Order: sequence, then C-alpha cells, then structure tokens
Amino acid sequence: MLTESHASILRLINQFGPLSRTELVGQLGISKASMSALASDLLGRGVLTEGETIYGAGRPATRLQLSGSSAYFIGVSLAPAQFTLTLADLHGAVIDARELPVEREASSIVAAIAGAVEQVLDAHPTTRSRIAGIGLAVPGFVDSFSGLCVRSTLLDWREMPIGAMVAEATGLTTFVENDANALAFGEHLFGSLRGCEQGTLIAVGDGIGCGHIINGELHRGARGGAGEIAHATVEPNGLPCQCGKRGCLDTLASLRSIAAHARDAGLPEGLTALEAEAARGDRGAVAILHKAGSALGLAVAQIVQSLDPQRIVVALTDGPLDGLYARVLRQTVEANVMPDDGRRLELTTMRLEQRAWAIGAASVAAGRGFFRL
Amino acid sequence: MLTESHASILRLINQFGPLSRTELVGQLGISKASMSALASDLLGRGVLTEGETIYGAGRPATRLQLSGSSAYFIGVSLAPAQFTLTLADLHGAVIDARELPVEREASSIVAAIAGAVEQVLDAHPTTRSRIAGIGLAVPGFVDSFSGLCVRSTLLDWREMPIGAMVAEATGLTTFVENDANALAFGEHLFGSLRGCEQGTLIAVGDGIGCGHIINGELHRGARGGAGEIAHATVEPNGLPCQCGKRGCLDTLASLRSIAAHARDAGLPEGLTALEAEAARGDRGAVAILHKAGSALGLAVAQIVQSLDPQRIVVALTDGPLDGLYARVLRQTVEANVMPDDGRRLELTTMRLEQRAWAIGAASVAAGRGFFRL
Repeated sequence: MLTESHASILRLINQFGPLSRTELVGQLGISKASMSALASDLLGRGVLTEGETIYGAGRPATRLQLSGSSAYFIGVSLAPAQFTLTLADLHGAVIDARELPVEREASSIVAAIAGAVEQVLDAHPTTRSRIAGIGLAVPGFVDSFSGLCVRSTLLDWREMPIGAMVAEATGLTTFVENDANALAFGEHLFGSLRGCEQGTLIAVGDGIGCGHIINGELHRGARGGAGEIAHATVEPNGLPCQCGKRGCLDTLASLRSIAAHARDAGLPEGLTALEAEAARGDRGAVAILHKAGSALGLAVAQIVQSLDPQRIVVALTDGPLDGLYARVLRQTVEANVMPDDGRRLELTTMRLEQRAWAIGAASVAAGRGFFRL
Repeated sequence: MLTESHASILRLINQFGPLSRTELVGQLGISKASMSALASDLLGRGVLTEGETIYGAGRPATRLQLSGSSAYFIGVSLAPAQFTLTLADLHGAVIDARELPVEREASSIVAAIAGAVEQVLDAHPTTRSRIAGIGLAVPGFVDSFSGLCVRSTLLDWREMPIGAMVAEATGLTTFVENDANALAFGEHLFGSLRGCEQGTLIAVGDGIGCGHIINGELHRGARGGAGEIAHATVEPNGLPCQCGKRGCLDTLASLRSIAAHARDAGLPEGLTALEAEAARGDRGAVAILHKAGSALGLAVAQIVQSLDPQRIVVALTDGPLDGLYARVLRQTVEANVMPDDGRRLELTTMRLEQRAWAIGAASVAAGRGFFRL
C-alpha cells in the first residue's frame, strides 16, 4: 500500500517528468535519508525506474521516472451516443479500447462493463494483477465520494448507486465522476492542463461541458454541480432551452444548437462545413458562428473574472481550431476581461477526440486510486 | 511554535465550537495518546482552556475551547475612503479600532500604521507579547505570498512591497491580502461563512467586491484576480464602465451606480431612500432597483452554475436587507440557475459594517499566521 509520502513523489514526477532524488528533496522539503528510503521502496515495487544520469556539480545523479507498466486503470465513459471502455497505463496511454452497447438500464450497463473488463484483461493478461481501479464518467450529477449518480437526465437515473454496482460486478475499486469533470481531470493528469494548478477545460461537442482544476484539485462544488456552464445565462430573455430556462450558453454555442440554427437558415449543419461557408463570405453562416463564439467568449470571460485561472482550454469535437468560432471566442474574451498588464491568460483550443472521455474516466481511477489527488 | 497537528485541532475548535478529546480524535483520525499529548501542549501554552463537562456513555468528558486572549491580531484595512486599524482577539472580537489618515503615499501609510500599532499596544499592554501578526487588506491585485501589491488603481500603487515595508516598520509578521478576499476570509473564520467549505461573499457598497472560499480555503486565482466580478459583463454592449469595458456588473448594481442613476432621474441617491420611493410605487425607483437587482442576480446565478457553492452571502452597506433590490436579486437567481431537486443554495443578505473590513484584515493574520489556513 502506498503512503501519502509515496504518492507525493509520484505526483511530482507525473507533473514535471523524471526528477533526481535531490530535486525531489528540494520540492518536498524532506530529509535526504527519508527520500532515499522512499525512493528505494518505489524502485523495489517497480513503480519507479532509474532513468537518465545527469552530470552537474557533485556526484552524477540519476533521474527517477514512472514505470508506465507498473499500474493500469480502466476507464468507462457513459458519454451520450457512445459508451467506451479503455485500458490505460500509468502514463495515461491507451492499451485497449472497446465500445459498449448504449443503454439506459443500469443493470445491463454494469453487466456489459463486467464482461468487457474480463475480455480486456484476457487480452492483456500481464495487466490483470496491476489494475488499480475503474473510473466511471457519468453525464449527470454525481456524489463522487459515495459513487452515487444523483441525477442523470440522459441516462434517466436518480440516486443510482452505480459505483457500488460496478465494484460488486467486477471486484475492482470503482470511482465515479461527472463526465466533464473526468475529462478535465484527465487533461490535468496527462494532457493539456498538466502542471497547471488553476485551469479550466471546456468541451464543446453536441453539448457543452466544463471542469475546473483549482489549487491542483478537481473542483466539484457543494453538490457536484460545478462546471455546469452550459446552462449559465449568457443572453437574458434569449432562446428557450430544453432545461426550462432561457438564454443558456447551450442554446447558442453547442454544436447541436449551431447545427439547428444552420438548418433553419438552409445552411450545412456540421461546424466544418459551416465554417467553410463563412470563409466564403456567407452572411448567414458568419452570423451564426459570431453569435456562438461570442456567447462562449462571454462565458469564458465570466470565468476569468470570477476564478482567474491560469489556462483555459476549449476542446472542440469538430470544425477548425482557428476558424471564425474560435476567433470570435478569443476576441470576445479579450473585450470582456479587465486589462491585465501582461499577466495574460493562456487561452487555447484543441481537438476533442472521442477517446479523451474514456482516458478521462481512467484518469479518475489513476488520480484518486493511485496519485491520491 | 505550533505544529500543523496543533493547528488542525485549533481549526476544528474554531469551526465547530468547543470539542472533547474524543470528538477531536474522531475528526482527526489520530490516536488517543497523540491527541492527549497535543491537548496537554495546547492547554499548557494557554491556547486552549477546559470548558463545560459533558456526560454520556463512559467517563464524563471536558470540552476544549479556544482561549480568546491567548493570541491577538492587528488588521489594517486600506479600503477606499476609510483606513482603519483594529486589534482583534482569537475569536475575532474587536478589542480596539482606530481610524488612520487616508493617503496614497506608501511611506506615510506605513508610518501611520506603525504609530497606531504602538498606540494600540500601549493602550492594551497585556496583548503586546501575544500579537501573532498584522493582516493588511488592500484594494487591488496582490501577491499574497510575497506581500507585494501588484497594482492598485485606488492607491495608485504598482509593484509596491507593502508587506515588507509594514513588517520592517512594526517588527511584526505581516500578511497582505486583497480587501474583498480578506472580507470573505474573515466571514469564513469568524462570521457568516463559518463552517462553510464552499462559500462566496459578495460585498455591495460603493463598489462590488467578491471572495470565494473553495474547499475551505480562500481562492485567489492564478494572478490574484479571483472574485473580480464587479467587472464581469452582465449586459453586453451596456453602459460604459470606468474600467474601459461596457456592461460591467458595477455599472448597474453598485451603490455608486445606483446613486448615479437615481440622481439622473431626480430621485434620492441613498439606497434606503430609493427603496422607500420604490415601496411608495415610484416607477423610476422601481426600474433602477430592478435593473440593479437583476444584474447582481445574473452574476450570482453564473457563479452558482460555474462553482456550485453551498452558500452565497450578499453583504450590503446600506438599504433594507429584504427590499426590492434583494427580492429581485433572489428572483433572478432562481430564474437563472438550473432546477436543483431541493439541494438548495443558501442565499442570504446581511449588513456590511465598516469594521468588517478591518476584522477581515485581522483574520488574514489569524488564518495564515495562527490557524495555518
């Protein structure tokens, strides 16, 4: 069993890459003797290996690195339209990924997960004894400590003890997280928010998801509702939203809404095609993308004013990363945050691949079960 | 010198009130023997005293309570229009409070602080040896770890090492914090956000300040800019703001803006008088208060959707706590957050007294210098 001291070493190496014992002593503020004992422990267990030798003042030192094959994690994403199960290693690299049938009945989902876990472990027998847990990413409100899905409109679940059900069916430690939070957590551990203690990930696909990393931890909020910016009002008395309110960010900036506005205007529905129309000067396409980008930009600016993150990553499932949508987003943020004397926000766009959701789910098991985040 | 273990006991007793050793063991997950040794230590130093005896199963137990007179803190608020210096005890109770001359020149301010500290300690000689530090609350961007005021428009400061200057002039450990953050921190330690791990304080006076408590800690953001909701856009293309943007929350909902709108309409400027006009049915007064309350309500709703706090406290320097402004605020929040299945946000209003700013400043010294928050 790893202690908190072990975990703090592993977190630092995951965050910064291979580190020498001396560098770890500096970061952790513990004695050289303690560090030496902890490192021997982790080397003995095979969690760390010796990496490159560095030469400087004093004796040459060896950098310690994570052994990717020392622990494995299973991630299950129940994102709408596609359920996937992924086997990932300690670096967040995908070893195997499988689609699961899309259902709503929890018992069927659990049975499918248990079956797929067995198949994956049979296919990769050396990982079986090193599986540290399963992470489940669920679209909806989640109590991540009890593993309860409090409410999921998409799955039609209320107070569903999905964590306990999966743990019982698989015999593996199971961690449950909201899907957008899992995605942000995955990016924090292994991706675009790595090393960023104050960061926000916004996923723009059919819907809009958002997760905040605050002081290096995932921020879930008092009731698991943090990051629900899709239903923040950006246009008072705006378009009706399926949540019951009006003027939600989702009504203007999600790809589903953009497609609906495009259809109404007789334009192509996909973001890539719509961006192409806008690039050719179609005024209808320009107007739709302008409205979408400025709605998201306003929401981002409000996050900046309220939370002051270091980095915001907007992950798009479709369309160009530097199209009109992204440019209007960026200009709207600029125009709606206070001038900052050059202490600039890092605002980037990236492609959101389907498998990022399952890697996010696996990262929940890695983070909570292994790195103790 | 208190260790982290000592501080964790003191934090729990401050948060929950007097606790028995058994209750503390349960909360901290340490052994009875360790607890007994730590408690003896803190009793010996006079930081804790024995309180009431509780009778239940087993031996009667004594509750341990904080000794208010075991440590004192000085708080200096450089809030606009009134600079104050306060001496507070370990319960956050004010022992003495003095006004300081309002200036912009840092060296004059530091000299005034040093002089007032001496006067206060002369007036309360028993506290002199028990002063644990000074907390400075500064209107502007602050690097709270280095004690630097990065930028204050109100004080016309840039990169001012105010913490180091005050520490040198007084010989006391000095902590620097943004003023709204200090206010939120004070409410978290000693007031309306006590015991609340996820809470937001919004101060509505001439301007609008905001501080977030996240996971029991003050959230400062990546560049000390968290909580700057006064300049979040609530009305795209709205009224010009002195920050350079348009449609900032401040242009509609601050008392200074409300007074300006009232003056333009030939109405009384104070919130109390304007509320009275609205209660008499004056349509101009109703419109101004409606616009102000809904602007603040929209900003609060955005915080709810993004951060999901347990409690939001709106502290008003003037006007009724349940007038039209507060009612519209509440209704706008209701209308702009997702339905929550009864897992309700606690939204309360309170009076913001001038001295709360200086208590907030003192709480920064208590929190960082004593409770190690």
